[in-house]
Amino acid sequence: MIVNSSLDEVKKRENALSIIKNIVETKGRDSLFDLTGLSGGFIANPSELSLLETYVGPAIFEEALQEVGIEHMGGEKVLPLNRTSSGILATILTLVKKDSNVVHYLAELPAHPSIPRSCKLVGAKYFETDVFDEFSIPENTSLVIVTGSTMDHKVIDEDEFRKVIEMAHEKDIPVMVDDASGARLRTVVFNQPKACDLGADIAITSTDKLMPGPRGGLMAGRKELIDEIKVKVNQFGLEAQPPAVLAMLNGIKNFNEENLINSFDRKDQLFELLCKQFNNFEKTPTGVMISAEDLADEIEISHNLSDNDLAFILAFILLKDYGIITIPAVGMPGASATIRFDLSTSDAFNFDLIDLSKKIEASFEKLLDVITNEEKCREIVFSF
Amino acid sequence: MIVNSSLDEVKKRENALSIIKNIVETKGRDSLFDLTGLSGGFIANPSELSLLETYVGPAIFEEALQEVGIEHMGGEKVLPLNRTSSGILATILTLVKKDSNVVHYLAELPAHPSIPRSCKLVGAKYFETDVFDEFSIPENTSLVIVTGSTMDHKVIDEDEFRKVIEMAHEKDIPVMVDDASGARLRTVVFNQPKACDLGADIAITSTDKLMPGPRGGLMAGRKELIDEIKVKVNQFGLEAQPPAVLAMLNGIKNFNEENLINSFDRKDQLFELLCKQFNNFEKTPTGVMISAEDLADEIEISHNLSDNDLAFILAFILLKDYGIITIPAVGMPGASATIRFDLSTSDAFNFDLIDLSKKIEASFEKLLDVITNEEKCREIVFSF
Repeated sequence: MIVNSSLDEVKKRENALSIIKNIVETKGRDSLFDLTGLSGGFIANPSELSLLETYVGPAIFEEALQEVGIEHMGGEKVLPLNRTSSGILATILTLVKKDSNVVHYLAELPAHPSIPRSCKLVGAKYFETDVFDEFSIPENTSLVIVTGSTMDHKVIDEDEFRKVIEMAHEKDIPVMVDDASGARLRTVVFNQPKACDLGADIAITSTDKLMPGPRGGLMAGRKELIDEIKVKVNQFGLEAQPPAVLAMLNGIKNFNEENLINSFDRKDQLFELLCKQFNNFEKTPTGVMISAEDLADEIEISHNLSDNDLAFILAFILLKDYGIITIPAVGMPGASATIRFDLSTSDAFNFDLIDLSKKIEASFEKLLDVITNEEKCREIVFSF
Repeated sequence: MIVNSSLDEVKKRENALSIIKNIVETKGRDSLFDLTGLSGGFIANPSELSLLETYVGPAIFEEALQEVGIEHMGGEKVLPLNRTSSGILATILTLVKKDSNVVHYLAELPAHPSIPRSCKLVGAKYFETDVFDEFSIPENTSLVIVTGSTMDHKVIDEDEFRKVIEMAHEKDIPVMVDDASGARLRTVVFNQPKACDLGADIAITSTDKLMPGPRGGLMAGRKELIDEIKVKVNQFGLEAQPPAVLAMLNGIKNFNEENLINSFDRKDQLFELLCKQFNNFEKTPTGVMISAEDLADEIEISHNLSDNDLAFILAFILLKDYGIITIPAVGMPGASATIRFDLSTSDAFNFDLIDLSKKIEASFEKLLDVITNEEKCREIVFSF
């Protein structure tokens, strides 16, 4: 095993960031292609920037974000957070008591690790399921969680969504929707309603996913609950800071539904090109992906690496040789090791798809060349 | 009681932010005087701003911050955090086990609430003391915390500081130093060494306190511990985001020791002016302050308000009538209700001190006028 713990994952990420820095400094930003679908942005003009002081910035931008954020997310009030994970932590700290149950419905297991981790922190029992029925909500349940679209962009069925919310509300249990990318994917691409309009009490989206906003979370929902959660958010330092709030505001204003829809056609082209060489690529709503397990199935050579290690090594070859950034290289600990090539963000718009498919193939060939040399693999992932 | 709960404190803060927004929009930024000593800043140039994307920004700025941050804080590695409170939470999540003991030494009680709160979250027993001796560290202690300078800027004695660290290390217990403002106040004004140079394993400073940086926390310390803490930080979304990291970098570079030292002379002048009218103002290292209790003692009229309420009302009068921002108006829940006029930050440099003392006196007179009218007081704190 090359990457064996959360600590290894942190070191891997740090190495990826050093490689990115080196590319920017030696070849320039144009030689980097962020295809994570999370590349976000920081849109701000000079007059806005001069207001970014601790107590002045939030006054201006948080109020403006209320209007724009509610339009994007629904609900009665929004709350900007440092990360979607921080918002999940704050919600669970506020609503979930020790020894109570938390039930999580999602279209495909497993859940994003921040949810079970936060439940463990407060001493709650956590259950997750992709089949929700009348037996799914046990006695003493304090919170029902629904994931709108998984880390691999699998989207929930709208009827299921409504059913879960209804069943929770029949028992007076609040519903939190983790709508990280779903707030845009579900609504723009699948024409589903906003989570709050479907009855969610709290919904959270990631402002860097499928929109040109900063890394951060935006929570929306019932005012009374948001106010309660905000107390925990402020107590433990989980709120978004003024520069992020400003960039969220401008990111939402600059969110372009057309770009998201256009990436649909291009992903079909890329998928066909890759199918000539590979068997296991899959389409996502806005690109293509291959899971670590499916990547392992593409390989006939015998080796001692884990499936995840294969994905990490391939991601580092893509980054070092071609400046292509994917999540397995730069992701936070616990992030999915699936390699996704997302075509919905700005770096992807001008990327020639034939060129991209050739670079993916060449990187895969290089993976095969090093696969039996564990020392070399370790060097690719951990060394600059 | 006017402000009666954490929720009231959140509402109070929201109202203060609305008032600030209105002043900026109707009269301009020049009509606001942020004397909190926390006003921070956001220094960035256009070429830096264009790099503020999720995976590119951190690569560039986090590496640069290593060098500049270690120079400011000491230690082997630094870690930028969303808030000092988030860093305290992450450290306690990493180092403190359920049912173990945490001992906190500070020059004057009480502690910043984020420390006992984080201990409670992990189920640890928390003790705080301003007298540290051989009996202060019980069996099964997982962490010793030292506060370098309290919320009211009371600074620790250097010999005591060394003694506490030595006693903890004799028992192999790690020491975290909460050096929120102390990292500058202790070193520049009191000529003390950096916390890491005194032997602290982990030290955290607030990058908006007494320096022109953003709201945020900067942790420094032993590499191996920082790496462990960073895992929790990334898992729960507690890290500083790229715009904050950039502003921390530039804030440290622009930190001016002279300004901090100059505020020393001016605070003596302001103190003398206020002594003509008041009995209970005290000097801080960089300004003057009056605690809620001491404010109550200035008042001879009989009334039903709590001491904290008096401070909150006075802070809102200062803000609404004169644009003077103090912590009781804008502070996070649990922040000290002491009214501090800090002269070390840029808004204070050009403020005529005779004018300032007259505005403080007039605000106090207005407080006396409304003190028996609870409805009016409530309106001052909660209404726009």
